[in-house]
Amino acid sequence: MKLQEDTICALATAPGGAIGVIRVSGKEAFSITDRFFSKKTIEQESHTLHFGVFKDSEGKIIDEILISVMHEGKSYTGEASVEISCHASNYIQQQILRTLVLGGCRLAEAGEFTMRAFLNGKMDLSQAEAVADLIASESQHAHQLALNQMRGHFSSELKELREQLIHFASMVELELDFAEEDVEFADRGELRKLLGKVLDYIHKLIQSFELGNAIKHGIPVAIVGPPNTGKSTLLNQLLGEERAIVSDIAGTTRDTIEESINIDGIRFRLIDTAGIREEAEAIESIGIERSKQKIEQAKIVLVLVDVQQNEENILEVMRWARQLLEQFPQKKIFLIQNKTDVPFDQRAIDFQGITLHISAKTGAGIEELKQHLGESVLGEQSLEDRSIVSNARHLEALEKAKESLQRASDGIEQGISGDFIAMDIRQAMYHIGSITGDISNEDLLGNIFSKFCIGK
Amino acid sequence: MKLQEDTICALATAPGGAIGVIRVSGKEAFSITDRFFSKKTIEQESHTLHFGVFKDSEGKIIDEILISVMHEGKSYTGEASVEISCHASNYIQQQILRTLVLGGCRLAEAGEFTMRAFLNGKMDLSQAEAVADLIASESQHAHQLALNQMRGHFSSELKELREQLIHFASMVELELDFAEEDVEFADRGELRKLLGKVLDYIHKLIQSFELGNAIKHGIPVAIVGPPNTGKSTLLNQLLGEERAIVSDIAGTTRDTIEESINIDGIRFRLIDTAGIREEAEAIESIGIERSKQKIEQAKIVLVLVDVQQNEENILEVMRWARQLLEQFPQKKIFLIQNKTDVPFDQRAIDFQGITLHISAKTGAGIEELKQHLGESVLGEQSLEDRSIVSNARHLEALEKAKESLQRASDGIEQGISGDFIAMDIRQAMYHIGSITGDISNEDLLGNIFSKFCIGK
Repeated sequence: MKLQEDTICALATAPGGAIGVIRVSGKEAFSITDRFFSKKTIEQESHTLHFGVFKDSEGKIIDEILISVMHEGKSYTGEASVEISCHASNYIQQQILRTLVLGGCRLAEAGEFTMRAFLNGKMDLSQAEAVADLIASESQHAHQLALNQMRGHFSSELKELREQLIHFASMVELELDFAEEDVEFADRGELRKLLGKVLDYIHKLIQSFELGNAIKHGIPVAIVGPPNTGKSTLLNQLLGEERAIVSDIAGTTRDTIEESINIDGIRFRLIDTAGIREEAEAIESIGIERSKQKIEQAKIVLVLVDVQQNEENILEVMRWARQLLEQFPQKKIFLIQNKTDVPFDQRAIDFQGITLHISAKTGAGIEELKQHLGESVLGEQSLEDRSIVSNARHLEALEKAKESLQRASDGIEQGISGDFIAMDIRQAMYHIGSITGDISNEDLLGNIFSKFCIGK
Repeated sequence: MKLQEDTICALATAPGGAIGVIRVSGKEAFSITDRFFSKKTIEQESHTLHFGVFKDSEGKIIDEILISVMHEGKSYTGEASVEISCHASNYIQQQILRTLVLGGCRLAEAGEFTMRAFLNGKMDLSQAEAVADLIASESQHAHQLALNQMRGHFSSELKELREQLIHFASMVELELDFAEEDVEFADRGELRKLLGKVLDYIHKLIQSFELGNAIKHGIPVAIVGPPNTGKSTLLNQLLGEERAIVSDIAGTTRDTIEESINIDGIRFRLIDTAGIREEAEAIESIGIERSKQKIEQAKIVLVLVDVQQNEENILEVMRWARQLLEQFPQKKIFLIQNKTDVPFDQRAIDFQGITLHISAKTGAGIEELKQHLGESVLGEQSLEDRSIVSNARHLEALEKAKESLQRASDGIEQGISGDFIAMDIRQAMYHIGSITGDISNEDLLGNIFSKFCIGK
């Protein structure tokens, strides 16, 4: 954690493209820029744009640039800031950064702009964390979660929670002042009811983490089954459309999306599909061993069975699928009957999980499969009106808060002295406050912001 | 080539990073943006910045963004333009682009923003081409060439050239009007002298292409020599420092710089150094065959000889180096005597090219080698005050112009009729005009701008 007195600079855009943006923030942002820019940013109004040339310390022109001027209190960081929009040549960007550093700037550390925004009160800690999540978001719901959090929905709920607890703690503490008189300002029954409500709410937030985490990081899906059941064809069916859409948009590269699909705004990560593509579909045993690792990593397992095969083979897959169902009650196991485009001997399939008929070849049933995948995550829930925890640090804080509040609740039941109860409540408030950064320390901040990219 | 009436949009930054910039340009830039933005850009002054939320067509918030407003005549393209600065999430960028397209924008083609700038008279064609060169520039001199060209140095010289030719042609054409009176307004001796001057100048420009091209694309260098002469150590010595500097700057990735070094602001591309790294330095024959391809691609060949080896080996390398010198008179062959840090039997080395003593291990002599590399390209010349052609299209046009002018000059000598001379001069003017785009057509423009990146 370095001094906030420094004026910092960094490239905020990725290498490549047509335009590069260099951010400068801090007390000297204008005066340093003005040593090299052909106009005086220090004399300009906030939120104005200025075209001119940027020269190096020897007076040689580096580039023709456009500069955005933002005054103290009106910028992202809350500090005097300029953003330099230059041609996206590595050489030019390096020269501008070098010149700024020669002029007195320091290269920013990862997340330092956002950390300053936090330290200057432009956002709380959970909002700052949401900025990083927003940049990383790759699906509609991940984006929605991050956006809600960045815009302060979660923060305001936590604030309300804290206010309830403050009220609660004050009442108990007030009693302590009048301890000798043995009054009870806070009706113990009422208190326990109120605590129960808060506990319920926190419990719900904790429970939402599974969903939040799945939405944020994508839901791992394994496609398994004997050779020649059409795994690779199914994979292509699932990916096919998605790819075409993605490559429509300029600038997106296939590399960054791995093998993943978006269904209903949720990202499903297809595990180890390289293996599916590569495997020569050799006729060998059912491959339970080979699939084991994939299944363990997955939340959802698609077990493919080829309905055109002989009964013995089909029964073997069925036995295997039932075994998975038993062994992994936490996972969703889908039995996918493939190759149903050709007439087949319809057998009574005895399976407790979801059973679907598809033809990976013709695409029949794929939409239904996608629908089931989508529903298996969101169910009937709508994300719009809910607070969902997607950050492991927040989860930990909430679990600690819950523990303290549970202790307080138990304490009331056992008729324990008010000062102990108040202490537990204060501790819960501490943990909740750590989420929004009302309580923070350098280590915590360093840890959080070091995960950001540079330039943010 | 699509209609200029369309309002176009594109992502102007590379995927990744903290900030993404989406450009919108055209008649409807403000009205389309305003359907989705929380403020009215149409009511704002030019060169102002506005913070707000950008919503999709269903009214759902996509992101909190900063919008730059630039009025017609005051933007890069010369059209009404906005630049949307958003969080650099692929999802957000895609959603914003989709929303703009739903609102009536068209996704821009490669180079379309710059093409509009050209069509709207904001820059001429050679300046537009320089924009792409500027973005691609990776060394000081490549940057300098592109910047000079973008800022119009080359254009103004060509303009002057054309004016001289116009004057020239008018004089000859004037004579034609008075043909029956058999007057000579233009003294033929004066004319030929003037033409000779113009031809000289064009010839110099044509000759500058070799240097310009080398500066723009980097100079290919091959490191060759028998196994165990220290090729890999020399490579590391040459690259070492450079890398450290590059990785100092945030956002630059090793991948994009290949194996190249900057010396005196010139990029030297080290050919097939992967081979050098990988080769297990097995003791085998001198490897002429293996190096042949590398040598053919190179402009400069560094032949390494290990002075610690026995006389026979050294003589073999010398024979080989001399053979290269004869076979490739166009290339610069450096004989690099390595391992001179340990005392060695100083032999009279009979070599007509540049001979240097180094120790790749200790780094001795490396600076001198770099100095020789730098000088071998620039010589005594300074780039500052010269026009250097670095574009193959310009070279071709200049060669055609030279041809026409040479014909005119020969024609005068042979006493050919004025109308033929005037025609040749007009043709030369046509070719020179094609460089700056005074003369252009759709095919030419399509060809030039399709080489740009999207968003520029």
